Amino acid sequence: MRRYILTITCPDRVGIVAAVTGLIASLGGSVLEAAQHADLDSGQFFLRIEIVADSLPFGPDELSAAFEHVAAEFGMQWHISDTDVPKRVVLFSSKEDHCLADLLYRWRAGELECDIPCVIANHEDLRDLVEWHGVTFRCVPVGKEPDAKTAAFADMEDILEKEQADVIVLARYMQILPASFCANRLGRIINIHHSFLPSFAGARPYHQAYERGVKLIGATCHYVTADLDEGPIIEQDTRRIDHGDSAEEMRRVGRDVERLVLARGLRWHLQDRILLNGTKTVVFP
Amino acid sequence: MRRYILTITCPDRVGIVAAVTGLIASLGGSVLEAAQHADLDSGQFFLRIEIVADSLPFGPDELSAAFEHVAAEFGMQWHISDTDVPKRVVLFSSKEDHCLADLLYRWRAGELECDIPCVIANHEDLRDLVEWHGVTFRCVPVGKEPDAKTAAFADMEDILEKEQADVIVLARYMQILPASFCANRLGRIINIHHSFLPSFAGARPYHQAYERGVKLIGATCHYVTADLDEGPIIEQDTRRIDHGDSAEEMRRVGRDVERLVLARGLRWHLQDRILLNGTKTVVFP
Amino acid sequence: MRRYILTITCPDRVGIVAAVTGLIASLGGSVLEAAQHADLDSGQFFLRIEIVADSLPFGPDELSAAFEHVAAEFGMQWHISDTDVPKRVVLFSSKEDHCLADLLYRWRAGELECDIPCVIANHEDLRDLVEWHGVTFRCVPVGKEPDAKTAAFADMEDILEKEQADVIVLARYMQILPASFCANRLGRIINIHHSFLPSFAGARPYHQAYERGVKLIGATCHYVTADLDEGPIIEQDTRRIDHGDSAEEMRRVGRDVERLVLARGLRWHLQDRILLNGTKTVVFP
Amino acid sequence: MRRYILTITCPDRVGIVAAVTGLIASLGGSVLEAAQHADLDSGQFFLRIEIVADSLPFGPDELSAAFEHVAAEFGMQWHISDTDVPKRVVLFSSKEDHCLADLLYRWRAGELECDIPCVIANHEDLRDLVEWHGVTFRCVPVGKEPDAKTAAFADMEDILEKEQADVIVLARYMQILPASFCANRLGRIINIHHSFLPSFAGARPYHQAYERGVKLIGATCHYVTADLDEGPIIEQDTRRIDHGDSAEEMRRVGRDVERLVLARGLRWHLQDRILLNGTKTVVFP
Repeated sequence: MRRYILTITCPDRVGIVAAVTGLIASLGGSVLEAAQHADLDSGQFFLRIEIVADSLPFGPDELSAAFEHVAAEFGMQWHISDTDVPKRVVLFSSKEDHCLADLLYRWRAGELECDIPCVIANHEDLRDLVEWHGVTFRCVPVGKEPDAKTAAFADMEDILEKEQADVIVLARYMQILPASFCANRLGRIINIHHSFLPSFAGARPYHQAYERGVKLIGATCHYVTADLDEGPIIEQDTRRIDHGDSAEEMRRVGRDVERLVLARGLRWHLQDRILLNGTKTVVFP
Repeated sequence: MRRYILTITCPDRVGIVAAVTGLIASLGGSVLEAAQHADLDSGQFFLRIEIVADSLPFGPDELSAAFEHVAAEFGMQWHISDTDVPKRVVLFSSKEDHCLADLLYRWRAGELECDIPCVIANHEDLRDLVEWHGVTFRCVPVGKEPDAKTAAFADMEDILEKEQADVIVLARYMQILPASFCANRLGRIINIHHSFLPSFAGARPYHQAYERGVKLIGATCHYVTADLDEGPIIEQDTRRIDHGDSAEEMRRVGRDVERLVLARGLRWHLQDRILLNGTKTVVFP
Repeated sequence: MRRYILTITCPDRVGIVAAVTGLIASLGGSVLEAAQHADLDSGQFFLRIEIVADSLPFGPDELSAAFEHVAAEFGMQWHISDTDVPKRVVLFSSKEDHCLADLLYRWRAGELECDIPCVIANHEDLRDLVEWHGVTFRCVPVGKEPDAKTAAFADMEDILEKEQADVIVLARYMQILPASFCANRLGRIINIHHSFLPSFAGARPYHQAYERGVKLIGATCHYVTADLDEGPIIEQDTRRIDHGDSAEEMRRVGRDVERLVLARGLRWHLQDRILLNGTKTVVFP
Repeated sequence: MRRYILTITCPDRVGIVAAVTGLIASLGGSVLEAAQHADLDSGQFFLRIEIVADSLPFGPDELSAAFEHVAAEFGMQWHISDTDVPKRVVLFSSKEDHCLADLLYRWRAGELECDIPCVIANHEDLRDLVEWHGVTFRCVPVGKEPDAKTAAFADMEDILEKEQADVIVLARYMQILPASFCANRLGRIINIHHSFLPSFAGARPYHQAYERGVKLIGATCHYVTADLDEGPIIEQDTRRIDHGDSAEEMRRVGRDVERLVLARGLRWHLQDRILLNGTKTVVFP
């Protein structure tokens, strides 16, 4: 069923929901799902509403136009998505395939409603996997020298622009993104970190976990910012391990957590279920 | 902070939220929390709204009066709770104290906002525990003969009426309630069953679980109906066990699950977070 | 590292471990892992020991020969596996691919140490997926008439014999196996059932779960016996759902549980970590 | 049933289990449970065996004597506990009672087999709770000045010596122990930290978690060393929270995790299920 998804962030005050739902009701709009959150610290209000497209007398552009005066009155940042216009997701990968294979599987199985115009990788290893799924594979090696690196990311910028990418997913992509690359994409690059952040940020988290002797390992899906491993957290989960598990076995168990956490995070993003709240997220699952 | 909690169930149609929030906004009411659910099968709509009491120009009676025409228009079943008027909870127990002790602890610690006018038990064993918490202990033994049983439950009905009980919690109460006792209290008697229903309904669920060789055990908090172990489920949880755990060890592990599941269920009930949807529940946690 | 895995089941009495480990030590055998369980109900004792192959002066046949007198003394049922001789696993599937795709992925990724001589399916749908993994796909349609059914399973018996299959995994195979097919394969056919057994045995478990209004769904990996959904349970797990999840969404969430539970169960089987104890299992994870 | 629990740590080599179980079998000893672990990094071997007391012809002293030559041969650190001699546990508390109340409840319910000679607190608040359980309450206020602090801990040392304490449990005790107090008690002081270490070490972990926007909170039970929050981890667990949970609500949810994690850790300690492995632990649950 085609739906319009309206997401709103604005300063909290009396009457926001009444104004928004009043407008929708006056247009005959049928609401499928709605969720809201008022953050007492920041004073911000967050709202997400799914409207049945066919219940409105017009399309998303007219809905936007009709909504503008409400938005202005309350000082809203807002967005309307149309489920008939799938988001365009570019997956970034390196050599490890567990997250990439999982996302491609879920996409093929219809669990992730999006287009995947291409996969960008800095190694050739995963070409076969990607192409078997009918997805274009673009290998952009990243040299170690600053100039080579800059050139590589410029190439990737070109690809992203040409492919009109809405979202980037780092599916265990083993290159640090330049700050400039992140700057204009706040809330549009999703990463999976293989630890329960803020524990074990940085390199080799399973090794760190093994050394510390923790009894659970985890994974964290977050939006990427210029501060590595510091971006707004979208989703996390943990699994039990014990003294008998080597760092290698933690990696194996952890791969399952990474897959699930990243898939949940991306699914929520595609459905506009995640709103940024400063360095944190509001998630309406 | 004093709040009014409005819960609504009605046939789904366009404009419900707009009408309700519009009314609240027109009164200057500040909404703290709101959650809704449309059940596509039953066509019913469920809504829960927390309003800051001080944001309204009047009290709960006037709010009710103001709300009546909206309610009538949409054919709503509805209820307004005032957080300054705590619900009155009567706990029923027998000999096992793990759930009772846990609820009394949480009540004393301020986690359960309610009054507990008394505990009713069919044995004397837990008198000290109850009285140490400053709660009246009423022992009503239940004889095995039908007449004795009828008389005992008549006594309990008297106590409940006198104490103006809003809710009954069966904290491992080992007597089957008469159908007549349940009939007028749909959604107002909460039980904890020591299995993951519908598995292992009936007696000795840990023993049944041990015999079947399951790898997880669970507990189920549900509203009581005349059909034993068949009432609407409020909350469930599970814990891992293994081949080395005897039925007795399952009981020990299970007690923790029972405590947590019952406490969550009661807490949600006290905050009007549970709405009945036929034989199921809608829970806004 | 090559290992021999010795598994033993015998009546419990004093001195079993001493006799077994004494023999191994006398041969210079280095033990990597050992686990044991005494079942107080059945009086049976269960033991699993991993021995470093290179620490012994000879191969698995000589180890078996050396072990025979100990085995006889204690009335042991026992088995020695050689990790250099991977088990031969035949996967059965129908149209749904989530479990099959997951097992093939894990096999390709090295998480499942086994040979997969072929996949047998009663539909053609998954041929591409299987063949892309370099595995032979054998389509054996199963007719509805008793004779056709008998003929189909006779064909499958032939394939299994020719392929020298050690284990069969029903990866959401939607045909009921004939009793004769199961009879000689106790502990060698693994199934995944998409509910937390014994809840919701039989058909359409997610639909049943939805109707009952449970708050968690689950999956169960078990050995197949002639009694449908009654075989010894190997592994189970659950996931939280809520009133907003349709039966279809439960299926989606459930697929993740099914995949994980089946993969864990098969992995343990391949490593000889599961011993039968009547209608139950002993699992040394 | 009375049991002797033998725990062993020694350099790994061939024949340890054979020697130990051989000796036990030669004495007619019946083994109820056994578990072992070889740490490939440290080269250490860990063993725990439960022996039925009545199956031996003599008591624990003779068992120790009989065991000495085996221990010497393999360079073992070892210990024999007698389940008829419960460990003596002194609980330390301050003002928050959730962990203390839980441990006292479990002790009274028979879940924790130990003696509790007294509770030591630096405030009077919890006297009633403790004394209702029939346990002596010793209030030892701790001044802020170094001298006052030293004197207070000297008093506590006296109490511990007089009460012959085997184990100290810091049940949310809000004083930092002097290094000298910890030094001689490695593996004998158990603390509960209200975060999933190493995340949010130090003060106000729920506040830190709230600020960071994590999606799970946790608790950690660990042995105390002079390095605050750095001791060997015994047990951890996590619970899901979301954007709607304030730091205060995280504290409430977290209290349940703390209780469960501390109770599990202490139970394992009382049953000699935890062996130190440098800065980590081996736990045989």
